[in-house]
Amino acid sequence: MNEHRNSGLWDRAVRNLRGAWDKIARSDSELLPTSLSPELSDADRVKLVGQMQACLEGRGGEVSARARAAALGHAYLALNDRGRRRFMETMANEFGPERGAVDAAVEALRGAADDEARQLAEKDLKAALVAPRVRLLTQFNGLPEGVKFLVDRRAELLAYAHESTALKELEQDLKSLLASWFDVGFLELRQITWQAPAALLEKLAAYEAVHAITGWEDLKHRLAPDRRCFAYFHPRMPDEPLIFVWVALVDGIAGNIQELLDAKALLVDAEAADSAVFYSISNAQTGLRGINFGDFLIKRVVDSLCKELPALKTFATLSPIPGFRKWLTETEEAEGSLLTDAEAQSLEDALGHSGLSGLSEILSDRGWRNNEILVEAAKQPLMRLCAHYLLEERRPGGTTLDSVAHFHLSNGARMDRLNWLADTSRNGIEQSAGLMMNYRYRLGDIEKNHEAYRGGGEITASSAVRGLLKVKDRQ
Amino acid sequence: MNEHRNSGLWDRAVRNLRGAWDKIARSDSELLPTSLSPELSDADRVKLVGQMQACLEGRGGEVSARARAAALGHAYLALNDRGRRRFMETMANEFGPERGAVDAAVEALRGAADDEARQLAEKDLKAALVAPRVRLLTQFNGLPEGVKFLVDRRAELLAYAHESTALKELEQDLKSLLASWFDVGFLELRQITWQAPAALLEKLAAYEAVHAITGWEDLKHRLAPDRRCFAYFHPRMPDEPLIFVWVALVDGIAGNIQELLDAKALLVDAEAADSAVFYSISNAQTGLRGINFGDFLIKRVVDSLCKELPALKTFATLSPIPGFRKWLTETEEAEGSLLTDAEAQSLEDALGHSGLSGLSEILSDRGWRNNEILVEAAKQPLMRLCAHYLLEERRPGGTTLDSVAHFHLSNGARMDRLNWLADTSRNGIEQSAGLMMNYRYRLGDIEKNHEAYRGGGEITASSAVRGLLKVKDRQ
Amino acid sequence: MNEHRNSGLWDRAVRNLRGAWDKIARSDSELLPTSLSPELSDADRVKLVGQMQACLEGRGGEVSARARAAALGHAYLALNDRGRRRFMETMANEFGPERGAVDAAVEALRGAADDEARQLAEKDLKAALVAPRVRLLTQFNGLPEGVKFLVDRRAELLAYAHESTALKELEQDLKSLLASWFDVGFLELRQITWQAPAALLEKLAAYEAVHAITGWEDLKHRLAPDRRCFAYFHPRMPDEPLIFVWVALVDGIAGNIQELLDAKALLVDAEAADSAVFYSISNAQTGLRGINFGDFLIKRVVDSLCKELPALKTFATLSPIPGFRKWLTETEEAEGSLLTDAEAQSLEDALGHSGLSGLSEILSDRGWRNNEILVEAAKQPLMRLCAHYLLEERRPGGTTLDSVAHFHLSNGARMDRLNWLADTSRNGIEQSAGLMMNYRYRLGDIEKNHEAYRGGGEITASSAVRGLLKVKDRQ
Amino acid sequence: MNEHRNSGLWDRAVRNLRGAWDKIARSDSELLPTSLSPELSDADRVKLVGQMQACLEGRGGEVSARARAAALGHAYLALNDRGRRRFMETMANEFGPERGAVDAAVEALRGAADDEARQLAEKDLKAALVAPRVRLLTQFNGLPEGVKFLVDRRAELLAYAHESTALKELEQDLKSLLASWFDVGFLELRQITWQAPAALLEKLAAYEAVHAITGWEDLKHRLAPDRRCFAYFHPRMPDEPLIFVWVALVDGIAGNIQELLDAKALLVDAEAADSAVFYSISNAQTGLRGINFGDFLIKRVVDSLCKELPALKTFATLSPIPGFRKWLTETEEAEGSLLTDAEAQSLEDALGHSGLSGLSEILSDRGWRNNEILVEAAKQPLMRLCAHYLLEERRPGGTTLDSVAHFHLSNGARMDRLNWLADTSRNGIEQSAGLMMNYRYRLGDIEKNHEAYRGGGEITASSAVRGLLKVKDRQ
Repeated sequence: MNEHRNSGLWDRAVRNLRGAWDKIARSDSELLPTSLSPELSDADRVKLVGQMQACLEGRGGEVSARARAAALGHAYLALNDRGRRRFMETMANEFGPERGAVDAAVEALRGAADDEARQLAEKDLKAALVAPRVRLLTQFNGLPEGVKFLVDRRAELLAYAHESTALKELEQDLKSLLASWFDVGFLELRQITWQAPAALLEKLAAYEAVHAITGWEDLKHRLAPDRRCFAYFHPRMPDEPLIFVWVALVDGIAGNIQELLDAKALLVDAEAADSAVFYSISNAQTGLRGINFGDFLIKRVVDSLCKELPALKTFATLSPIPGFRKWLTETEEAEGSLLTDAEAQSLEDALGHSGLSGLSEILSDRGWRNNEILVEAAKQPLMRLCAHYLLEERRPGGTTLDSVAHFHLSNGARMDRLNWLADTSRNGIEQSAGLMMNYRYRLGDIEKNHEAYRGGGEITASSAVRGLLKVKDRQ
Repeated sequence: MNEHRNSGLWDRAVRNLRGAWDKIARSDSELLPTSLSPELSDADRVKLVGQMQACLEGRGGEVSARARAAALGHAYLALNDRGRRRFMETMANEFGPERGAVDAAVEALRGAADDEARQLAEKDLKAALVAPRVRLLTQFNGLPEGVKFLVDRRAELLAYAHESTALKELEQDLKSLLASWFDVGFLELRQITWQAPAALLEKLAAYEAVHAITGWEDLKHRLAPDRRCFAYFHPRMPDEPLIFVWVALVDGIAGNIQELLDAKALLVDAEAADSAVFYSISNAQTGLRGINFGDFLIKRVVDSLCKELPALKTFATLSPIPGFRKWLTETEEAEGSLLTDAEAQSLEDALGHSGLSGLSEILSDRGWRNNEILVEAAKQPLMRLCAHYLLEERRPGGTTLDSVAHFHLSNGARMDRLNWLADTSRNGIEQSAGLMMNYRYRLGDIEKNHEAYRGGGEITASSAVRGLLKVKDRQ
Repeated sequence: MNEHRNSGLWDRAVRNLRGAWDKIARSDSELLPTSLSPELSDADRVKLVGQMQACLEGRGGEVSARARAAALGHAYLALNDRGRRRFMETMANEFGPERGAVDAAVEALRGAADDEARQLAEKDLKAALVAPRVRLLTQFNGLPEGVKFLVDRRAELLAYAHESTALKELEQDLKSLLASWFDVGFLELRQITWQAPAALLEKLAAYEAVHAITGWEDLKHRLAPDRRCFAYFHPRMPDEPLIFVWVALVDGIAGNIQELLDAKALLVDAEAADSAVFYSISNAQTGLRGINFGDFLIKRVVDSLCKELPALKTFATLSPIPGFRKWLTETEEAEGSLLTDAEAQSLEDALGHSGLSGLSEILSDRGWRNNEILVEAAKQPLMRLCAHYLLEERRPGGTTLDSVAHFHLSNGARMDRLNWLADTSRNGIEQSAGLMMNYRYRLGDIEKNHEAYRGGGEITASSAVRGLLKVKDRQ
Repeated sequence: MNEHRNSGLWDRAVRNLRGAWDKIARSDSELLPTSLSPELSDADRVKLVGQMQACLEGRGGEVSARARAAALGHAYLALNDRGRRRFMETMANEFGPERGAVDAAVEALRGAADDEARQLAEKDLKAALVAPRVRLLTQFNGLPEGVKFLVDRRAELLAYAHESTALKELEQDLKSLLASWFDVGFLELRQITWQAPAALLEKLAAYEAVHAITGWEDLKHRLAPDRRCFAYFHPRMPDEPLIFVWVALVDGIAGNIQELLDAKALLVDAEAADSAVFYSISNAQTGLRGINFGDFLIKRVVDSLCKELPALKTFATLSPIPGFRKWLTETEEAEGSLLTDAEAQSLEDALGHSGLSGLSEILSDRGWRNNEILVEAAKQPLMRLCAHYLLEERRPGGTTLDSVAHFHLSNGARMDRLNWLADTSRNGIEQSAGLMMNYRYRLGDIEKNHEAYRGGGEITASSAVRGLLKVKDRQ
């Protein structure tokens, strides 16, 4: 074994996986030779197809088929990137639905004389439409770490599936399979504390997608007595979080993320706090993209916190507005400055020169935040335009342009407060111009808000947020 | 609460279920009134359809949809038999695949101009073929005991699904759903000991299908240090065994079930025993009929025993031949006596009169076993005909007639020894004429045996078993 | 292995114990030969003493000493009753405190010149007073089931320790050791439900000391949703309850044990019940006699029930008066009839003859309960005399005569209600003349009641109970 | 709550402790006021004594006594250092053994007429010698974290107990109590992996006493697949390691600690490794000083590794020689140079000047290791003198001078190999002159070695180690 101690390669899961699968595979005599060429030569590809066929035919019984699946998985892990892709293409091209069987079933359906005949034909058609590779994929689920193996395969596939119809179909087959297994009803909500396994906490840090975790001390602070973390898990992937959320218990809804993450801040008495602020939600598994748990997660966490801490009255997020800056830049490029005359004047005064082309010009110079007068002058137009972006800019179907806004509005939240200089990290300035939104979850209004948004694109927002739009007129 | 302490009604699961679901349902305002008429009046049926539609549309968001599913389940449990059936018929008739959508997708598929168009059409068609009720059923899985709820609904449906095409479709939809959730890869094998919860052991006794358990003492004996019990469980039904097997550790393959179950027998030293005899396998959940775990169970148990007890050399069953007696009676009715002249002579001598019509005549008088000479005379013809029944009688496809034999041969076992007076219980005599078969599992031969049987209907049997066939000629 | 399957001998613990200990012992070379004569011959006794000495000297290190302890325990278990007793006598006689060392330390203490010298002398004296066998006994604690082994040894010793001073000392040494290990702070309170291991429930049935459990159905009824059972466990004896209590959740304090145990009674809604009735407390380990947990058990269970079921307002026992009948008989024998004239008259009327010698005469004929008039006539004198027995009859130190009354009064309970015909089982009539007492636990009064009773022997009782005393005067 | 997030004060245990104890204490009315002055004023001291007396008298029953203990503990934690010490002095001075009772019991013992009288007198004396405060201390054990509370109190006491006889007695009382509770038989050996709670791993890093852990990455490397960590735990302190050991699985006994700890080293295949090297053992609880688990830990870990990894053949430590450098310096100071003439000559040649006073002179200049010739010249005398120090220098009782050597020799290990430049960390040079010893544990020799060393001070060492002594003569 020539892995370096610090190479990251010793990750227990990977090594154990290959060890365990090798053992299962070896229990059977005529399984795939494990010495495939790393790039999967044409000759090896032929062997592979044969092995996949044996698997599908259940040759030697179902137990043997699972051993063959282990051998296939073992062989896959030994391939390089090119070999892996050829492996996937083989599955995509050779084990799709059988066109002849589909067509025959279609004809049978069209000729069905009565209900019973139709039912039979529909059943046959449904079966014919299921690609044989789906059975192959299913056979991995019983292997140690087999479900995670499939999730990771989809993550890889997503990168290149768009390149061919067959690969796209394979990716979709895998998605359907995973969607059925990862139905939220099968998931388990767990609270994560400083008592959690180090191996798990390490993953949270790696998967955190919103506010990067800088190290173990930072992690520990996010698990302090006035903080909470919850994650969903699948029973067959007990060490892998699927999605997780970080919550701060505070007095009054927090409006600034740096203050929240400040390790020097005073502790809040959790039992007396009146608000729970969800300041970060991250999906951990790329391979589960498009399978949504976020809605359930927030509401189950609200339930759980209500029970633990009856003093909590308010549940809200502190969320980025990740598309705002991009929209602003593009719109100003296309349409010119969006500033009112008064706003432009104030900004030019602060800058000490005229000829300002728009807000983007100011934001593109990172030094703007050091000029207090400029910051003051920028507040009104940025808040106003952000409110406009969130409330008025829509996609064709009527949904809001901003992805995070769309997520929370779909879940039945309302826009509660837009916060100025709320995230002054580099990322916060670059994406959200430093602004953050509190989306508020009120149990009694969730259904109504959801229906209003889903049905007619109506956005529920506080008068404070709506009021920002009107600022312009008052000038 | 007016349930009687000993009414069996206090079963925690049932009561908790209704309590828990009521709570989930109540968390939402406009859910199904829980005061449906027990028989589901026509007016209530209309309300029900509306509620199901709301559920399917995801009105108020996915979390609300789950609350509606809880309300539906709660309402279902309050119905009487007639009401429950009307509930099911409603699902079957109103929420099947939409014929229009299916037909449109079929036409789109037929007209597909290229691969991409065909892929899209296939995807649409697959979606159209999935009945909306499948989504409804899925929504139960996240409720406490929701998976068991669905398993039990299928058990009910199986009793009357044959009465209409729509009900049969519904039953098949449910089966597909359950088959995907209960894939063997998701199941957990657990050993059951006398340390197991009383509530679980009570279920084993209730579900035992082969050799009835007479009480707690009997149960304890079957869990003695020289016995083993294993069961499969699903993570969402942790208290419900799916299938379980009882094993006796013995010296030499056991050939008599009464001796095995005798509470007065001496204990065997488990660590020194050379044979493991699987003397009973029972499926516990009617609602999972047609979803097979037996093959995996036996092989995983063999693996597990090998690890625990390295002295074990032989793995075999002691199995009934449940169709033998019926086949014998029917065949003699149709074709007359199957006895050789010599056999008939011996039997008539033992009876003390002539004119014997066949073996069935003898077996139909329960007293035959008290006549030692008769028993001796019956041995050869019964053993011979049983071997014939097992080895030569086939269904059209070439599989053996006997269901238990078919199960073990499919799994790759071979017929090792046919045992005389091996089960003298009333049931044993009535079904198997007291005979029992040892099916033997040899790891190295399983695949080969399986393929031989599956492919060409070839049955692997010991020369001792095959030799029984030839006895006739030697006469 | 020639144990019978139903001999009770296959109890896993016992067999495993000997197996495990044998293994530990064998890991060492020169340990005790396991082939001691069952009666422990004189020669074997000499070997034993040598082995014990080696153990005490820690020959080969502490780890070896533990292996020697295992060998000793293994040897002990193979002895017969006589051999075991000789083993114990050996420990008692050969490994007591060394008299010389004690005397020397006493002299050193008497001659101590200053505080420091005195402290050293006290320390030496304390050490000298600890018998070497205590170290031997301690070494068993780390063996599998070693703590249970010692508990069982004390149970055996208690039967014959009174026969010699040395045995009594050994028994007291063992008691001190166990008292320190079984301090209530180390114990764990667990609720027992129908989900508990069958092996544990079986023990509860075996250990139940107040109202015998008739079988598994009875056990299940006592664990119904309106019942509770709690037990204390020690971390080193996780499968062995130390003491357990059965509780019925009812409306109004129950006054009749047969009604409470009736399997046909209606279920009570636990969440709405206002009273918790402790109807049986049993010590499970004879070997822990004299080490008291009952006080803690009741109060911790009250705490636990308060949290689970906030509707509970009243906590009371339904307890036997086990010494009443004996006291009545003996007192009447010594002092003649205790009846008032009016009481005697009523009873004689009911009997239809005169010359009644006392209540004992009536109770000694089991038929008395079939005579309704007699039962009616017996009520007043029995209730009156029972109240007298409980309230007025004292031991020299002022404590009440009745052991159960003493237990609850010491714990701070008060006598709430005396119940007529409350336990009509054979045992109930024979010990308590069918009467039962409700001792009531009011959290606010417990300390006060305890102090009053402990300090001055003052018994807290309801006016109803006290009123029974005065009945006589009213005649 | 005004603790800083990063103050370290939010440690859950401490805060929960005070919260939980406050709750228990408050459940009782007349308990200690929690508003003691931080320094424990004289008035408060009087209150305290009263409360302690109430506790000892069991006023209000045993359950109340425990509540009082909680109040005492709560009050203690609120005191400052001076107050805490006054609290302890109060316990030491006011609640020691009652001199009168001891003296009376001594006289009774001296006057005992027969065995029975003597037994009684001994029992009374033993009781009189137990200080009442022991009962007080015992009452903490049932509180949440109560056992850890007492361990920490002893840790504090150890710092100043030598200042008075009474404090020393109190410290010894506490030690006896803890020694009985922490008997090795009650402890649980657990393997620690990267799956362990972060909170636990953080403690290992803090408690590591031999080779400091530099951070989480270092920690993770020490838990790599070719490393093992084991610790002992007490059931009442499940989150607190008592003692722990780090093991490296290697090929051939490792002789250099920096190589072992190097995060860039290649991984070893654990299943193929032939040696297990114990490279660090740390006691984690100062409060348990003098209660020894190390012997058991090493041997139980050897057992455990043997089972997991049958390829392991050799078990050895890689240990510092912490007293060597100090001995060398002091000896050279007292006796002058210990070098042979030839050694001195080589060293002076390497230094380039004469007049060397001894090895200490060289070692005291940290630059010596940069001079390769000097290093080469220093090797022989350092190795020789270290062997001499370890093998020949003894304490009065015959035990070796070096504490680590004494520990392993007592456990039955032998000195296997002395390693040159084996620990070049600052600490390694300063204490051990860079040398490390492999102590080897051979199961078959442990008892013999132990007895030889314990009995006659005979040290078992390899010929290679012994050979180092003779080098001098060969010059």
